Amino acid sequence: MSFQNPVFIPGPTNMPEALRRAVDMPTLDHRSSLFAEILHPAREGVKHVLKSATAEIFFFPSTGTGGWETALTNTLSPGDKVLAARNGMFSHRWIDMCQRHGLVLQVVETPWGEGIPADRFCEILTADTSHEIKVVLATHNETATGVKSDIAAIRAALDAANHPAMLYVDGVSSIASMDFRMDDWGVDVAVTGSQKGFMLPAGLAIVGFSPKAMQAVETATLPRTFFDIRDMGKSYAANGYPYTPAVGLLNGLNQSCGMLKAEGLENVFARHRRIADGIRAAVHAWGLRLCAASPDLYSDSVSAICTPDGFNATNIVTHAADTYGVAFGVGLGDVAGKVFRIGHLGMLTDVMALSGIATAEMCMADLGLDIQLGSGVAAAQEVYRATAAHPVRAAA
Amino acid sequence: MSFQNPVFIPGPTNMPEALRRAVDMPTLDHRSSLFAEILHPAREGVKHVLKSATAEIFFFPSTGTGGWETALTNTLSPGDKVLAARNGMFSHRWIDMCQRHGLVLQVVETPWGEGIPADRFCEILTADTSHEIKVVLATHNETATGVKSDIAAIRAALDAANHPAMLYVDGVSSIASMDFRMDDWGVDVAVTGSQKGFMLPAGLAIVGFSPKAMQAVETATLPRTFFDIRDMGKSYAANGYPYTPAVGLLNGLNQSCGMLKAEGLENVFARHRRIADGIRAAVHAWGLRLCAASPDLYSDSVSAICTPDGFNATNIVTHAADTYGVAFGVGLGDVAGKVFRIGHLGMLTDVMALSGIATAEMCMADLGLDIQLGSGVAAAQEVYRATAAHPVRAAA
Amino acid sequence: MSFQNPVFIPGPTNMPEALRRAVDMPTLDHRSSLFAEILHPAREGVKHVLKSATAEIFFFPSTGTGGWETALTNTLSPGDKVLAARNGMFSHRWIDMCQRHGLVLQVVETPWGEGIPADRFCEILTADTSHEIKVVLATHNETATGVKSDIAAIRAALDAANHPAMLYVDGVSSIASMDFRMDDWGVDVAVTGSQKGFMLPAGLAIVGFSPKAMQAVETATLPRTFFDIRDMGKSYAANGYPYTPAVGLLNGLNQSCGMLKAEGLENVFARHRRIADGIRAAVHAWGLRLCAASPDLYSDSVSAICTPDGFNATNIVTHAADTYGVAFGVGLGDVAGKVFRIGHLGMLTDVMALSGIATAEMCMADLGLDIQLGSGVAAAQEVYRATAAHPVRAAA
Amino acid sequence: MSFQNPVFIPGPTNMPEALRRAVDMPTLDHRSSLFAEILHPAREGVKHVLKSATAEIFFFPSTGTGGWETALTNTLSPGDKVLAARNGMFSHRWIDMCQRHGLVLQVVETPWGEGIPADRFCEILTADTSHEIKVVLATHNETATGVKSDIAAIRAALDAANHPAMLYVDGVSSIASMDFRMDDWGVDVAVTGSQKGFMLPAGLAIVGFSPKAMQAVETATLPRTFFDIRDMGKSYAANGYPYTPAVGLLNGLNQSCGMLKAEGLENVFARHRRIADGIRAAVHAWGLRLCAASPDLYSDSVSAICTPDGFNATNIVTHAADTYGVAFGVGLGDVAGKVFRIGHLGMLTDVMALSGIATAEMCMADLGLDIQLGSGVAAAQEVYRATAAHPVRAAA
Repeated sequence: MSFQNPVFIPGPTNMPEALRRAVDMPTLDHRSSLFAEILHPAREGVKHVLKSATAEIFFFPSTGTGGWETALTNTLSPGDKVLAARNGMFSHRWIDMCQRHGLVLQVVETPWGEGIPADRFCEILTADTSHEIKVVLATHNETATGVKSDIAAIRAALDAANHPAMLYVDGVSSIASMDFRMDDWGVDVAVTGSQKGFMLPAGLAIVGFSPKAMQAVETATLPRTFFDIRDMGKSYAANGYPYTPAVGLLNGLNQSCGMLKAEGLENVFARHRRIADGIRAAVHAWGLRLCAASPDLYSDSVSAICTPDGFNATNIVTHAADTYGVAFGVGLGDVAGKVFRIGHLGMLTDVMALSGIATAEMCMADLGLDIQLGSGVAAAQEVYRATAAHPVRAAA
Repeated sequence: MSFQNPVFIPGPTNMPEALRRAVDMPTLDHRSSLFAEILHPAREGVKHVLKSATAEIFFFPSTGTGGWETALTNTLSPGDKVLAARNGMFSHRWIDMCQRHGLVLQVVETPWGEGIPADRFCEILTADTSHEIKVVLATHNETATGVKSDIAAIRAALDAANHPAMLYVDGVSSIASMDFRMDDWGVDVAVTGSQKGFMLPAGLAIVGFSPKAMQAVETATLPRTFFDIRDMGKSYAANGYPYTPAVGLLNGLNQSCGMLKAEGLENVFARHRRIADGIRAAVHAWGLRLCAASPDLYSDSVSAICTPDGFNATNIVTHAADTYGVAFGVGLGDVAGKVFRIGHLGMLTDVMALSGIATAEMCMADLGLDIQLGSGVAAAQEVYRATAAHPVRAAA
Repeated sequence: MSFQNPVFIPGPTNMPEALRRAVDMPTLDHRSSLFAEILHPAREGVKHVLKSATAEIFFFPSTGTGGWETALTNTLSPGDKVLAARNGMFSHRWIDMCQRHGLVLQVVETPWGEGIPADRFCEILTADTSHEIKVVLATHNETATGVKSDIAAIRAALDAANHPAMLYVDGVSSIASMDFRMDDWGVDVAVTGSQKGFMLPAGLAIVGFSPKAMQAVETATLPRTFFDIRDMGKSYAANGYPYTPAVGLLNGLNQSCGMLKAEGLENVFARHRRIADGIRAAVHAWGLRLCAASPDLYSDSVSAICTPDGFNATNIVTHAADTYGVAFGVGLGDVAGKVFRIGHLGMLTDVMALSGIATAEMCMADLGLDIQLGSGVAAAQEVYRATAAHPVRAAA
Repeated sequence: MSFQNPVFIPGPTNMPEALRRAVDMPTLDHRSSLFAEILHPAREGVKHVLKSATAEIFFFPSTGTGGWETALTNTLSPGDKVLAARNGMFSHRWIDMCQRHGLVLQVVETPWGEGIPADRFCEILTADTSHEIKVVLATHNETATGVKSDIAAIRAALDAANHPAMLYVDGVSSIASMDFRMDDWGVDVAVTGSQKGFMLPAGLAIVGFSPKAMQAVETATLPRTFFDIRDMGKSYAANGYPYTPAVGLLNGLNQSCGMLKAEGLENVFARHRRIADGIRAAVHAWGLRLCAASPDLYSDSVSAICTPDGFNATNIVTHAADTYGVAFGVGLGDVAGKVFRIGHLGMLTDVMALSGIATAEMCMADLGLDIQLGSGVAAAQEVYRATAAHPVRAAA
């Protein structure tokens, strides 16, 4: 592995130098008044990224998994019913967490590569006339399959069923890379982490709670202390933190939000789409297909690429690491060995993307796949040339 | 606040440049083989620091508070009985966490400034003939009062009572600064964090489980997912992590353990004692006394200094920050306003310590206390001159 | 030596974190348009610091010594006559350079500890009716003795003598720390470096040429290529550089000028004076005296402190380094062994200064000098307490 | 320009993170004993890179241009005769410097794209029976044309002519990237800089003097002070420096030499050749040719690529910067507008090289050249696949 090559994993991303520096700060007394000058703007910044006017934002020294646990334990009680679809490894894990915490799950098994079936959810919710379902879980972007689900459609299903269940969305690999509309979509808890669209090291769970979710906190009986948002909220109101905060990461998050806002969220999303279009053009040129079943499901932050039957896709990832010092993502769970993944979120340039495509080509050729060298690169070059603009100026 | 001055809070500490750099690393694919080369040596390093041959070591992207929760939820079930002493803010908080998680507490209320009463524990444990008490909690170093308790004595109490309860120790502000003997003292769970003796940013909970504690995991029914050491252990065995690890912090921890080992643990402890002796000489020269009731209780990582009746000690901390750009610690809980704290853990030099003492003198004089300028400095200078050796060479 | 302690040498200074980061930038193509965005603002920034409206500013990857050579070789021819006073090691070295380059020197030998004798210069200039003297050299701040000379008085001497000689000033250890008025004082060439008042690493010679000095370039015949300001100027006009520039240092210089301007030059000077006053109060409390003969000569960037007869002052410096990990400056040349020096320029805080004073006290006591521990600290504390304000907020 | 993309200029190079950190060190007192621990190993390291057992190594805070001046002014006197070939911009500049310093030049005008004509040198030297020629200059690698000359052949010419002239070699863009044999080739002065094969920021001139060149110093009368190696040598002998050294760069150089030695010089050279072979395969695939006239002249550190007649090659460089945020090198002097240059020295990976090739393709296509997208990439991929090994592990 060479630290000079970009990484092409679906998070942690390549980090802009300015954000690494913001994180790597000298020790700041988190009980001093300076802490509030980092904390509160970071919370405002995240609200902006979530497109929410009313969400309460909380940060935990943790990861997205901790964010899931924050969502569940602060709002639910043992035996509460939860509706979810399993269409990939990450939706599977959230479901598993629910079960471990004594929740009752209704799982819609969904082929990996498909999105969350909003129509099936609508049927289930409509049938749940006694409103036993308290929460609907949705994984916005299945990092394992590169599938983006339609959250607005799930909101529409809830509304059509006139069902009061709350909607919790895992936006770990979508938020800050793809459009996310917490208020418009009626999301009650949004969960993400620092190491994806925010381009920071792992170590922060970032969660947004709607007013409705905040109300549910009062009656929830699942035990919680570390992840208790009541302590967190009380401390924030006093410009503090209930334990020792990860100040550097919060400082980085604040700066990251500033960078995203300066570029413009819609520009950030367009940039991700543009880079992803190049990757997808390469996949097509190679004669391969994505795990995602149809173009409306294509993720702009990660592409899971199916390799031919009988070929172990994981070998590509191992070979890339061992021979070219480049990190791609392996297939997980049901698609292990069947796909390899190219992560393309964060501050990736055309030039970096092309180097990843070129490396994938070499690996596939080395391993005997019938890939024409340069073909994927050429396809992506066409995309990038056609859409190139003056590049973003990344400050040091 | 000036980032050029040292901080004198009881953690996070001043960070050696080499550790900041170890943490601030480029993105490393945590699914690559390089991750194991960080993870496993870090685990070995922590075992060495804990002086344990048999502990299983786990790291969570979290803080000491998360470490407490890891200890409880992995080994206990609702209704289990826990024995603890409340002699400061941090012992109080761990007790509070137990209660929130449905455990039954037997609390020995202890004056703040005193250590854990091992004899009283012995009486209680002896009386508990049915062995309802499953766990004894002990805060090795009460960061709020600068009191170090005698863990060996608590082990002796358990042994004298012939009681099978497990012993869980919060060593957040002692481990890697003061002697800690997990095996000798029969500690079943040891908890610490990255931002104290390990001189790193906050963000890692570090826990060690004895074989007995590992066994308890099998039957414990408190819900847990993020902090579940079974997932963690399974992933470690496969050179992985159950979610995205904080790779930079783990890299820093590995290097920190290396630095501590290179210096020699006993030398590290002697260095902390020496710096603390200087601080204590200054306190004596000022005509003030420590919150810790007797010299055997004096902490080598933090000193809580009592100010005269009628004087608000918190003003010293505010004034130091506002006027001299220096961070001290305020009093917490029962001793709020009665003490201010000088943290002296981590890689502090004589020279840095003297600057903190000089600053405290100016602040006290500014605020009308009858302090002779230079008196504390002179007393500490005597200590440091008498014990100075060739200084540690901190690599860049 | 510990990198955690401040240094107390008269340059290179302790570096603000923000400037270290500005210097440590990724590779930037110096032939791209971005280079001009660093170069030209840095030139403007230096003009502001020099208080000049008309100077041409040039930067060489070099040091102050290279700046001296730039001044001489660009404006003089072999055999040209130069007037200078020798009152310390650095004035001596510039004189020596003149001689090596074939210039004819008229040297006014001046006791080390005294300033440049403007009245004697006036006599000499008045007597030089044929105007053979082409240049008067003046070392604004003799770093070796801690003596600040009166440049305005030298200008007055030139004017009183109605002499057309140019005035070249070595401001290496004064510029950006003490008041410097290029235009008001009629300075024709001002020379400094990056590692003093600009708080950067060594590696840049910074020179300012008056219009009169620029004219002299046309007729000067001393050979020069690397230091030729004509190549430099031509390249600047084309937004380039005649060879590979030290881009990081230039970026740092640009940011340093921004920091100085944001604080306000007069505030920067007052801050240096305030810190120096504390040091001087300590020297007085120790019963020692400065090498500088009278208060009007006291430098605000470095204090050379005389030790008692028979005592080797260099031992203090060696002992401080070996025992306490702190760097002071030794005496040089005529005052070697007779003085030790405390550098106090750059972004030094009260707290840092006090730690240096406390260390000097310990060293002197360790070596048998009759110094009361804490006495110098107490004297400095009085100064700092009386003048303390809300501290500068050094950004990370 | 994006700092996330590699640069493809022929220096300064992309910097390994470890070297950036070595340079970015805290202030170290250069009069302390620690300085010698950086200086002397760095000198030894450079001797190893130069393959010399007897050279004296000197470092100046300067650039390669300063290194040229060091070579000339320390060993020659006005009117001394120098033989040189002009076959590119950098040989031209060294010739120009000689003339400015009053030396008498015999210049062999050589087509740009050709190497130094050793046979013509032999004729001239043979004809110089009175041994008026004191020095032969040779630019090992003409950065402007990507031409590597045969230094061994020039030594052979000197020997065949039985001529005592010294041989001075500009190895700025060859040393530490391509084989250089100071002793075997009888090089008397070798000149390089920090920002090429040593992968550091610009700011250090690095020169090696043979014993014969050291002798010439005694009689040379060209004026010099800043670049005087006598002062430098005397200071080194006392573990010091004649003025303020660029400590961070020296620390970086020491570490760079360590990295090069650890990899093995022959491996370093093979790595450069391998990367260069890929670039050259791409050029061939594009149907273009190199400026270097024949394969034996091909430089392994930079390729100058000729574009078709009537096309302004500089537009490629401008377009790459503006549109794709990538830096290539323009043509200089006689080949301005006729070539663009791809720098491929330093720690470049296959993956980085491919991204540069892909970018060049896009630029050429955008500007209307008849280039098949992906063709150069495919050609380079073949080279890299065929020669790939486990990649160098660049430490953070």
